Amino acid sequence: MNSFTSVTDVVNPRALVESALQIKKLPYAYATLGTNKTIGLFFFNSSLRTRISTQKAAMNLGMNSIVMNVGAEGWMLEFADGAVMNGSAVEHVKDAAAVMSLYCDVIAVRSFPTLTNKTEDYQELVLSQFVTYATVPVVSMESATRHPLQSLADVMTMKESQRSSHPSQRTSQPKVVLTWAPHIKALPQAVANSFAEWTLALKYDLTITHPEGYELNTDFTEGATIEHDQHKALEGADFVYVKNWSAYTDYGAVLTTDPSWMLDEQKLQHATNARIMHCLPVRRNVELSDELIDGPRSLIYTQAENRVYAAQAVLKEILESS
Amino acid sequence: MNSFTSVTDVVNPRALVESALQIKKLPYAYATLGTNKTIGLFFFNSSLRTRISTQKAAMNLGMNSIVMNVGAEGWMLEFADGAVMNGSAVEHVKDAAAVMSLYCDVIAVRSFPTLTNKTEDYQELVLSQFVTYATVPVVSMESATRHPLQSLADVMTMKESQRSSHPSQRTSQPKVVLTWAPHIKALPQAVANSFAEWTLALKYDLTITHPEGYELNTDFTEGATIEHDQHKALEGADFVYVKNWSAYTDYGAVLTTDPSWMLDEQKLQHATNARIMHCLPVRRNVELSDELIDGPRSLIYTQAENRVYAAQAVLKEILESS
Amino acid sequence: MNSFTSVTDVVNPRALVESALQIKKLPYAYATLGTNKTIGLFFFNSSLRTRISTQKAAMNLGMNSIVMNVGAEGWMLEFADGAVMNGSAVEHVKDAAAVMSLYCDVIAVRSFPTLTNKTEDYQELVLSQFVTYATVPVVSMESATRHPLQSLADVMTMKESQRSSHPSQRTSQPKVVLTWAPHIKALPQAVANSFAEWTLALKYDLTITHPEGYELNTDFTEGATIEHDQHKALEGADFVYVKNWSAYTDYGAVLTTDPSWMLDEQKLQHATNARIMHCLPVRRNVELSDELIDGPRSLIYTQAENRVYAAQAVLKEILESS
Repeated sequence: MNSFTSVTDVVNPRALVESALQIKKLPYAYATLGTNKTIGLFFFNSSLRTRISTQKAAMNLGMNSIVMNVGAEGWMLEFADGAVMNGSAVEHVKDAAAVMSLYCDVIAVRSFPTLTNKTEDYQELVLSQFVTYATVPVVSMESATRHPLQSLADVMTMKESQRSSHPSQRTSQPKVVLTWAPHIKALPQAVANSFAEWTLALKYDLTITHPEGYELNTDFTEGATIEHDQHKALEGADFVYVKNWSAYTDYGAVLTTDPSWMLDEQKLQHATNARIMHCLPVRRNVELSDELIDGPRSLIYTQAENRVYAAQAVLKEILESS
Repeated sequence: MNSFTSVTDVVNPRALVESALQIKKLPYAYATLGTNKTIGLFFFNSSLRTRISTQKAAMNLGMNSIVMNVGAEGWMLEFADGAVMNGSAVEHVKDAAAVMSLYCDVIAVRSFPTLTNKTEDYQELVLSQFVTYATVPVVSMESATRHPLQSLADVMTMKESQRSSHPSQRTSQPKVVLTWAPHIKALPQAVANSFAEWTLALKYDLTITHPEGYELNTDFTEGATIEHDQHKALEGADFVYVKNWSAYTDYGAVLTTDPSWMLDEQKLQHATNARIMHCLPVRRNVELSDELIDGPRSLIYTQAENRVYAAQAVLKEILESS
Repeated sequence: MNSFTSVTDVVNPRALVESALQIKKLPYAYATLGTNKTIGLFFFNSSLRTRISTQKAAMNLGMNSIVMNVGAEGWMLEFADGAVMNGSAVEHVKDAAAVMSLYCDVIAVRSFPTLTNKTEDYQELVLSQFVTYATVPVVSMESATRHPLQSLADVMTMKESQRSSHPSQRTSQPKVVLTWAPHIKALPQAVANSFAEWTLALKYDLTITHPEGYELNTDFTEGATIEHDQHKALEGADFVYVKNWSAYTDYGAVLTTDPSWMLDEQKLQHATNARIMHCLPVRRNVELSDELIDGPRSLIYTQAENRVYAAQAVLKEILESS
């Protein structure tokens, strides 16, 4: 693997999931693989889990990590080729990415969408330019349209849950439901897009449910069942992924905050074995109820924990390829 | 020791002081105790000494450290149980603390008081919730009402000073004076509370002097002599701790900035052996005079230096207990 | 070497350049020299290359590094001796520098000029006070009037380029040209001053070209040829350093943004062998053309890369002296 920006960068996603599960058992088994290697973590946006879990993954592999909050500590970047740079941008991404590549063996970038410029966001303006101009592998720590480190941890969590569950509850083909949840702010589609992309690539049976108008970009959802009736979608679910996103068609809009879409225990009466997932941070009692987050169905903290091992599996594969 | 938030968390405060003094002599004696252990340093407020000394203490023990400025790099937290989170808070402390516990072996938190909501501050809203929801030990890097890492370094500094002083100047029971000092801003009571709490727990003879209206919460000062006449309080002092704080009764108020409360050499004419202490940062020539800070009575830089070893003693005890 | 703030701090600049070139070949040859040593990187201003390259240099030597954005994470400093600190400054540089010296074995400081107070800037108010009050070596990561880590990397890059060039293109005394370039903002004179100071100290043949009114402080340029005709200056150049700076005489002024001063390929028709240098970040197609930055004449990324080894040579010499 060179760069890690979407599931399509991964030669064998199943093997990567297995590698992450293996690393979870022995996190320090490759503690010298990254000796004298440096990862640069560049944040255009704020981060908690991704920042800490990726830094920890690097540490577990013996890598040095350098963290920069690009906005606060650095400078504004220019992305247009051939630009006459007499505006507010201080440095061209060409130069920034090239120079970071001289100092770092892996570059990790977080850059959220504008949610106003759909074309720019879905072309992945920032990330794609880093990939173009960096001369070292680039890892997405969430880009405008995807969050692959999250999705890898999510898939790993489902696999782990299935293996640890009682044989009577294991299904060869678990039903996975991605349900839209209310939120007061306009959030990116990245986590939802990416979860769909990864589960479908791994041949999960995926149902997506959301109010009308919240259709995701079909590039990501091809093969999924779209069901606007949330109750029907949840029936017999094995895994329920709860996530808000803003509209893709009416780009960036919050079309509704209808509280009847909030997930609670009552809604899972026809999904006895359903386990609940969420990428965090979660708006409690808005997206889903306290009782679910804090109850036995929740896999939410396990997902967070698995972020370390997912990142570690990715970095390990990158280090071994280079 | 599990968490370290006040002197009452410490089984044997005297032994902890001795441990810190011992570590100062051989700072790298436990350089592998923290191998593959991570401390997360979470700052809700700015910090110089605490940030660097705690990070250095962790390094000296071989721990990895991850630093986050929660406000600037992260998100706003919700503290109310059962909250419907449709406001500005992005994540519940329940989830933040639980997730940090997955990534870190020790969580260190700095969180200042509001100085407007006395009840919330004195209930230690932020710190106590971290202690409740974290599943790993929590270390206070100054909370709303206490600064125990500072106090441990302070007590250690007094002990060290006594031992290194000429036998003729040693007293079996030194007189410790905590004197209020003028300041233009409303500062927390934390350092003063904590210094009183620690010195009293260690059976020092403590006198507190301040203008009327600056009485500290008696929970911290039970056993101390309160003397409103500063000159009288300073008579025969062995250690004089200079510190400003805002009013506790008229909560957060700056009742006076009367410059006659500033400490200078002239005021110590009846305290020949008095050594001067301050936690820094200090407002020179407002709280105390240049001549005292830069003169032979000062223990101020030693206090700062001892912050490393105090933190190291705490982390060492936590690592050994876990 | 104790502190590193200008070329005059270096006993043998040529030997330091050779040391940096040597380290580039074997960057991990001294990987334990800095064991249990800490460098504190204190930023009063934003930084990309300097931050990362200095941190990496420290890592390569096995040092711990602590990074602080003084403005954002810390406090405002007082610089006036004897000040009554009842204003906005929270801590005196005396105390801050003394305390940092307790925690760090080397202190590195970045502090830009005001560009409004010429006297204060050219007295190096901030850096000189750190040097005065720190009790450990101080390294400039760019001060009001100089950027010696950049200049060392620049000189190293020229030396390396000469050695790797075809014998027919080597000259015993290469012609070095420093050319002013347009920019929309008022930039410090530090890089230009420092480049002049270092090349002249190392006996390079230096020509400086700029529009009238952009004369640098002659303390830095004594021995250089000043030529206001850019075309004439560039004739036969071996190295062309492109850099904007604001006026020194009419202090901090942007006197012109005349685009005819931008460097492009056409201007180098009488400088067949000229290699192009710039310290980055660069305003493309304002300071110099894309074709030059991205073309075969460019040494710009090599300069950036060499920043690591220049910093490493400086830290190595400091560690070995202490």
